[in-house]
Amino acid sequence: MTDAPGFHATLQRAWAEGRYACVGLDPDESKIPDTLRGATSARVETFCRAIIDATAPHAAAFKLNSAFFEQMGVEGTRILEDLVAYIKTHCPDRLVILDAKRGDIDNTNRYYARAVFDVLGADVVTVHPYMGRESLRPFLDRVDKGVIVMAANSTAGAGEFQDLPVHDGVPLYEHIGRTVAQQWNDNQNCAVTAGATEPEKLGRLRRAAGEMPILLLGLGAQGGDLDECLRLGRASGSFGLIPNSSRAILYASSGPDFADAAREATIAFNRALSRSGGRDS
Amino acid sequence: MTDAPGFHATLQRAWAEGRYACVGLDPDESKIPDTLRGATSARVETFCRAIIDATAPHAAAFKLNSAFFEQMGVEGTRILEDLVAYIKTHCPDRLVILDAKRGDIDNTNRYYARAVFDVLGADVVTVHPYMGRESLRPFLDRVDKGVIVMAANSTAGAGEFQDLPVHDGVPLYEHIGRTVAQQWNDNQNCAVTAGATEPEKLGRLRRAAGEMPILLLGLGAQGGDLDECLRLGRASGSFGLIPNSSRAILYASSGPDFADAAREATIAFNRALSRSGGRDS
Repeated sequence: MTDAPGFHATLQRAWAEGRYACVGLDPDESKIPDTLRGATSARVETFCRAIIDATAPHAAAFKLNSAFFEQMGVEGTRILEDLVAYIKTHCPDRLVILDAKRGDIDNTNRYYARAVFDVLGADVVTVHPYMGRESLRPFLDRVDKGVIVMAANSTAGAGEFQDLPVHDGVPLYEHIGRTVAQQWNDNQNCAVTAGATEPEKLGRLRRAAGEMPILLLGLGAQGGDLDECLRLGRASGSFGLIPNSSRAILYASSGPDFADAAREATIAFNRALSRSGGRDS
Repeated sequence: MTDAPGFHATLQRAWAEGRYACVGLDPDESKIPDTLRGATSARVETFCRAIIDATAPHAAAFKLNSAFFEQMGVEGTRILEDLVAYIKTHCPDRLVILDAKRGDIDNTNRYYARAVFDVLGADVVTVHPYMGRESLRPFLDRVDKGVIVMAANSTAGAGEFQDLPVHDGVPLYEHIGRTVAQQWNDNQNCAVTAGATEPEKLGRLRRAAGEMPILLLGLGAQGGDLDECLRLGRASGSFGLIPNSSRAILYASSGPDFADAAREATIAFNRALSRSGGRDS
């Protein structure tokens, strides 16, 4: 435990304080409580700020889903910038993950890295592995920032390519996880993704990833798998997971108490995540 | 040849008129001619509009690289929206390709599709295949729009995953190309990408893709491969290629004649592309 900057060190400090939750900010205007009035953009901004205020004491990270802001055009970009600045002002040691799934050639990624890290000010970004390590250097070279690489997803049809065997029966997602952990992670700033609804893939990915953190998606509404995910997904030397919950926290209540309900949902999520993991751990 | 809307039909009309060039708008402020004065955003906007005016009569498509605009923050989003509207107002049958390499789960892709197609107003978007067809349905289901799937890239290190053999020695990029052509293209709105500096991969991809269009990247500065790319990359029933040139057109002159030079570069590009293809065609 140090005060060192950087993605992994910040996670370690959060875990030491029992803050495991990654709060996903995917604001859907149609689900924002009616008690918040005004124009769409004002409602989204007020709603997200209230969620941040309520959950920050209990969160390791906020994951902002870029698509939900991009679909609001110029105003969405402005709100996204505002929310990142808000988090960095009020709770600077909570990680800001921009979930943008970026990935292009090296020259273009220099501009994406500037957009995400320097203009927007996010700490961490999600990226596609497809174009390989050399193309992703503008992200990977940033020792002060974090890079989460897509690996195992568990939504419908996600296996179409990621599950293809590429080496002696090893599926592509596992090969990616091992490659990121063993070859891309020189700066100790990498992580990979896994879906919570296929815990056996999470387990394979954990064995491939060693101590590297894994962003765990698809929890919350499908929380039934939590014990199994903890058993198979935790690292041996630390908690090792960035467990995301979006809708279960954001929309814990549709009434005027939405922020209190989001806080309680985050506390309950941390409590569930702090369980020793059940069966064999 | 029809007046039907849609990605492939618009390409067919362009090719019938000898407009083959895809003009890449990757505006780098440091390369914009000094004769354009004012704030950065005003210079970028004026520069891009002048390039559009000069090249539109000779272009099949404009490809806007999202990263170059995103790194300008809110103002970049505004310029991007302005330029798409400008093209759609002044030359509506020139395709607007947003080169954004998007790709997420189905629910999030609904928001990306809305952002790209409905809010921004682009005709075509580039996407990552990694999460599979089901996840990309919000793009693929849009019969009026186009979806270009990343397949074979030829930048340094691009082979790290795309070249892995996945079926009887077939590399992943070729398997993706065949899958997109045979299973994803029901709406005749798909294409795939290839890099110009590895023509043999382009050839494999063409055999896998059948008549489906291929976005050809990395031409221009490295134009020496053009004949080989034409020989290996053209479809049998049509031109079949969307050959992109960015820097060679945008920065054809650094003087006040930059727009005229861009027009001449586009005309010369079309002329080179209209060659019958050399060796064996």
